[in-house]
Amino acid sequence: MTRVVAQGTFDILHPGHVHYLRDAKAMGDELHVIVARSVNVTHKEPPVMPDDQRREMVAALKPVDEAHLGHPEDIFVPIERIDPAIIALGYDQHHDEERLQAALADRGLDCEIRRASPLDRDDSDRLLSTGRIIDRVLEERS
Amino acid sequence: MTRVVAQGTFDILHPGHVHYLRDAKAMGDELHVIVARSVNVTHKEPPVMPDDQRREMVAALKPVDEAHLGHPEDIFVPIERIDPAIIALGYDQHHDEERLQAALADRGLDCEIRRASPLDRDDSDRLLSTGRIIDRVLEERS
Repeated sequence: MTRVVAQGTFDILHPGHVHYLRDAKAMGDELHVIVARSVNVTHKEPPVMPDDQRREMVAALKPVDEAHLGHPEDIFVPIERIDPAIIALGYDQHHDEERLQAALADRGLDCEIRRASPLDRDDSDRLLSTGRIIDRVLEERS
Repeated sequence: MTRVVAQGTFDILHPGHVHYLRDAKAMGDELHVIVARSVNVTHKEPPVMPDDQRREMVAALKPVDEAHLGHPEDIFVPIERIDPAIIALGYDQHHDEERLQAALADRGLDCEIRRASPLDRDDSDRLLSTGRIIDRVLEERS
């Protein structure tokens, strides 16, 4: 039983999220997703959706076995609880893998870090990411 | 094997959609969802998301076995192809059940029409529907 962890904000769900989670699930048997709390989203605009609603929507997606909200102060607390064999990073997530690996080792966590593949398909220029969905709402509804 | 059909626009996914689809799935064994094409959404503002993206996101939800785009001219064409035992209407969908039943009978379609239950939970005032998500985007991002 190989447990995999994926993580992110998962604000307004789109096919890029589903692709990342499918890819992460394919790395093992059981996929746990850590959904960032709004208070911890500091590198981009805060999510539109409430924390619980984002967690619930991620949990409703087929590749996901369990979805958890992150810990407000210590990102490693849920990792310790879940104890995954693999942490799957999204292909565009700005994490320094070496620093993350070192921080995990400091906490006595032994897990492999892998990258999910990018969403590579012919229609990707037509797909809307969370940012493009928000832009479209602002263009069409304001 | 009882096949159930649910249908709707499913623009920006939220827990009300998941509740409706779970309820519909529980009425039988296999859930097919017909996702309305944007050209056929005339009773409310057109969806923000492209047709294919809405279909794809619905197909990624756990209760859904297959998601189809609607027929642009004749709403009964996918129903004929799927041949469901039950059509599950959302609790708030404005369909006249008797007229729908008569129209199905006219087309030689023998299926039962049922209503899904409303989403009844303590936190429902905190949950965002598609409309409230759009309002929040307009408030916070414009």
